[in-house]
Amino acid sequence: MPEYVQVQVAIDDRAKAAELARSAVSARLAACAQIVGPVTSTYRWKGQVETAEEFLVLVKTTRERSVELVDHIRREHPYETPEIISLPVEGGLDAYLHWIDEETGPGGEARETGG
Amino acid sequence: MPEYVQVQVAIDDRAKAAELARSAVSARLAACAQIVGPVTSTYRWKGQVETAEEFLVLVKTTRERSVELVDHIRREHPYETPEIISLPVEGGLDAYLHWIDEETGPGGEARETGG
Amino acid sequence: MPEYVQVQVAIDDRAKAAELARSAVSARLAACAQIVGPVTSTYRWKGQVETAEEFLVLVKTTRERSVELVDHIRREHPYETPEIISLPVEGGLDAYLHWIDEETGPGGEARETGG
Repeated sequence: MPEYVQVQVAIDDRAKAAELARSAVSARLAACAQIVGPVTSTYRWKGQVETAEEFLVLVKTTRERSVELVDHIRREHPYETPEIISLPVEGGLDAYLHWIDEETGPGGEARETGG
Repeated sequence: MPEYVQVQVAIDDRAKAAELARSAVSARLAACAQIVGPVTSTYRWKGQVETAEEFLVLVKTTRERSVELVDHIRREHPYETPEIISLPVEGGLDAYLHWIDEETGPGGEARETGG
Repeated sequence: MPEYVQVQVAIDDRAKAAELARSAVSARLAACAQIVGPVTSTYRWKGQVETAEEFLVLVKTTRERSVELVDHIRREHPYETPEIISLPVEGGLDAYLHWIDEETGPGGEARETGG
């Protein structure tokens, strides 16, 4: 199993998307997040196919932290059953993956306090 | 192997992207889809590197339904060899993943007919 | 392990994103790439949560070529530690996946020279 994931969240408002990204990074549940959109979502609702404007938030974290991150997003998200899916990251630039570890681990805060 | 996938499709027109999303959800081959873009695609054509405007469609379904979904997109898509790739979903919000099962399974229609 | 990957890169400028896409395809390190954005990135910098406008580049290649592709992007990218992550592709349209092989393999150039 790879050690990093990209958690993808859909939400209907840019400001709420920004707040999800900010709060996840602020709580060290993620190293960074990007907001993509607006996007057009298509889904079934009460038997009809509907569309709506949404934004996607792409959140980078470790697999270890991802359970806590999903719980956090669930609590902060206004929908009853929001799209929150986790996609595995199998590799990439080692220095960047190491930075995800630092930003989401307990060591990061100590280092920042120190400098 | 995870049980859910995000199928990603590239197509050159927003209306065609919307129709792919609508027809996949309508046929219960997917629970939902998002259209992202316009994006700028870069590829080689007859020895030259070309660019074109396209849209990406991100389609959520079960692994079990994904084979039928890919066949459906292939038939509806105007390109000879369209980009259709399937990315594994390894987790996320359990209630959302369960909703994908419901929306793509035979039970969903029965429930909706009932209420 | 699946044989194909989507390498995702974040970069702060559309022209630089286009040049990364062009150079990767031109060098046969990738079959194609899409530029998504602008997106809003959120990350921590010197203890503060910051945001910035960036673009995402989604690059399609084989797992075999992905190591060389990541090295290439690292060299061409202006950041010290850029986001370069690799997401596995587990399936899709067989003809499209085969096209990735052709476009990134040594055979592609021979065929193009011949026709």
